[in-house]
Amino acid sequence: MSQSKPLAGVRIVEFASFVAGPSAGLALSQLGAEVIRVDPLGGNADYRRWPLSNRTGESLYWHSLNRGKKSVALNLREAAGRELLLRLATAPGPDAGIVVDNAVGRNWFSYDALRALRDDVISVRVEGRADGGPAVDYTVNGGSGVANMTGPAYTDAPVNHVLPAWDFLCGQEVVSGVLAALRRRDRTGVGALIQVALSDVAMATVADLGWYSEAAERGDRARHGNHLYGSFGVDLVTGEGDHIMIVTLTPRQWQAVGTATGTTEVFAALAASLGADFGTDEGRYAHREVIEAVLKPWFAAHTTAEVEAALTAAGVLWGPYKSASEVAAEFAAHPEHEPVLTAVEQPGIGGVISSSSPMRIDEEYSGSAPAAVLGADTEPVLAEVLGLDDAELGRLRDTGVI
Amino acid sequence: MSQSKPLAGVRIVEFASFVAGPSAGLALSQLGAEVIRVDPLGGNADYRRWPLSNRTGESLYWHSLNRGKKSVALNLREAAGRELLLRLATAPGPDAGIVVDNAVGRNWFSYDALRALRDDVISVRVEGRADGGPAVDYTVNGGSGVANMTGPAYTDAPVNHVLPAWDFLCGQEVVSGVLAALRRRDRTGVGALIQVALSDVAMATVADLGWYSEAAERGDRARHGNHLYGSFGVDLVTGEGDHIMIVTLTPRQWQAVGTATGTTEVFAALAASLGADFGTDEGRYAHREVIEAVLKPWFAAHTTAEVEAALTAAGVLWGPYKSASEVAAEFAAHPEHEPVLTAVEQPGIGGVISSSSPMRIDEEYSGSAPAAVLGADTEPVLAEVLGLDDAELGRLRDTGVI
Repeated sequence: MSQSKPLAGVRIVEFASFVAGPSAGLALSQLGAEVIRVDPLGGNADYRRWPLSNRTGESLYWHSLNRGKKSVALNLREAAGRELLLRLATAPGPDAGIVVDNAVGRNWFSYDALRALRDDVISVRVEGRADGGPAVDYTVNGGSGVANMTGPAYTDAPVNHVLPAWDFLCGQEVVSGVLAALRRRDRTGVGALIQVALSDVAMATVADLGWYSEAAERGDRARHGNHLYGSFGVDLVTGEGDHIMIVTLTPRQWQAVGTATGTTEVFAALAASLGADFGTDEGRYAHREVIEAVLKPWFAAHTTAEVEAALTAAGVLWGPYKSASEVAAEFAAHPEHEPVLTAVEQPGIGGVISSSSPMRIDEEYSGSAPAAVLGADTEPVLAEVLGLDDAELGRLRDTGVI
Repeated sequence: MSQSKPLAGVRIVEFASFVAGPSAGLALSQLGAEVIRVDPLGGNADYRRWPLSNRTGESLYWHSLNRGKKSVALNLREAAGRELLLRLATAPGPDAGIVVDNAVGRNWFSYDALRALRDDVISVRVEGRADGGPAVDYTVNGGSGVANMTGPAYTDAPVNHVLPAWDFLCGQEVVSGVLAALRRRDRTGVGALIQVALSDVAMATVADLGWYSEAAERGDRARHGNHLYGSFGVDLVTGEGDHIMIVTLTPRQWQAVGTATGTTEVFAALAASLGADFGTDEGRYAHREVIEAVLKPWFAAHTTAEVEAALTAAGVLWGPYKSASEVAAEFAAHPEHEPVLTAVEQPGIGGVISSSSPMRIDEEYSGSAPAAVLGADTEPVLAEVLGLDDAELGRLRDTGVI
């Protein structure tokens, strides 16, 4: 069954920091590309980003986002170091000359500067705002409208997401951009400048859900806590205090809730008395609070194991809540339960919980690999890609360029 | 500057519902592919998903996620309808034979069934869990650990995200999978089965941040509300009650906050008295509450416009909070401020707020297009792709297959 990885032979140069660009490089590496990450000597601004390992002080974050890549470190304050990066990014070959960066505002690394060295270069660039303004995930989230919809119904303060969702989505857009531009270059010989602004990712995504059109028609929807919008779904608490999310997006899922909890007749009588139809999304959403109230006692009267067994037996669509430490503990005890997670021995840190790409190709996970020690591949990459010999490498070392 | 769209000539068949699969089809369409969405007669389970338009009752959600695609509607309860879908998905041609679906558990649409008709078919499949269990965004989110980290510091109940982030990320993985598999097929002639489970997307993403490794080392981090983890960033409230998010990920960004708010000397004295170094991420994070408290009065003493002007002048990294209706109102007044958003006249609804892809290719946005009326393209697509003639189409109509 096993074939070659789909991007085997493709070389990407990544010159990026924080989440968006590095997550793109990670995904491209998991698809089989050779990803050469270039950092300034000593590391980029994200090299010490939290969380740090208690064991060694190294960044669990940086070493997770940069695994499976080659690491080149260059003195980018020197023209000679910059020139090496430009030459790596524009090296010849049909499967090279592709660069991912977030180096907005650095004229020496502009698309024109890259094109001057390779006319058909593919430059994919992560930006803050498309108008050139600075932005990061945490500053664009509020502007998208999402923070004002998130959180408990009783608060009217915005609630930030903790997951940098816009960053990761932007990173995946970068992957699509690389692959789409490479396909066009293969066919037509033309390169591409592809720009993805975090702010645009956020606004386009919210627009794709129809939420701005909704707000234009009738103003902002009320904040509704953990309730699913437009149907019935909410978290309920078992007798052991565990939260369980249940979701009913179809009539069958709704019927299953009644079956599992023995409330079918209660809801039939309730619907009749309210003149409501709980078989519809609208009916369930309108009466979500009373539905929740009717279900609460059953959840509270059962253990978590009883609740889970009954929900599963009846075909309810449900999911548990776990803390990150519970996920970690379950992985330690039963790694086979979540095969997308993998144990990796990370130089500089020790054993870490890593992951495959979520994409299984021909029924196989990608597996994982550690991050390279910063700069570990500088000399081999310069030798292999740029053809530098030992004397030239020695000179670069002596002059502090590498 | 304008070149052909990168996926011009590629044909994708989409047989999917809700967010993940349809968002992938939308993105592929924005890259220039011909996307043929197939629905059961009358629409799939998401055809009436909220938000609905007040004007006509049609789904703003469905019509946003399915724009720019051709719409084919088939009676999939009949073998003849299923056969048409299978033939569309496996039609010949180097740029065809690619299908995106979330039809888990339908044996008649299995990879083997597709391969029997076209050996090199590319089948990209959205799943709930990789083990075959059902899951949607709202049930996997709790299991990832993220809901337990999100929300105000004073609550210990999980806070669901409102954005279906895992769905959208999964959709982008699907796009990458399509393009990577197509590249491999172009080179080697082999097709691919690519599976992406929502649950795996969530767990892999959290692992990519190092958060499970962190929890394995030292348990769960404390919930910290809207504060940025591992440095200083939080929302502050202006004299007009508007929230403003500020972020300091670098020493320069931190210095800018002092400059903008006139607090440089206060923080110098405070750091000395605390024995802290606010120039480091660690120092700012450890003392985030007192930093916030020192900044609050300045924000409260200024109008929103004054705050924004001072922050921008000093080079602070900041962003406003807006509600969705504020985004919509600003778009109506100044569409040029957010050029990723576009106005589209949607048949069946009227004017809506739509968007381009966030990816600008050669400095151009993709633009937007309305969704087709359900089934509007059934006959032309069957004629063009499968070569059915008028007599055959008439028979399909008469027997209720189309």
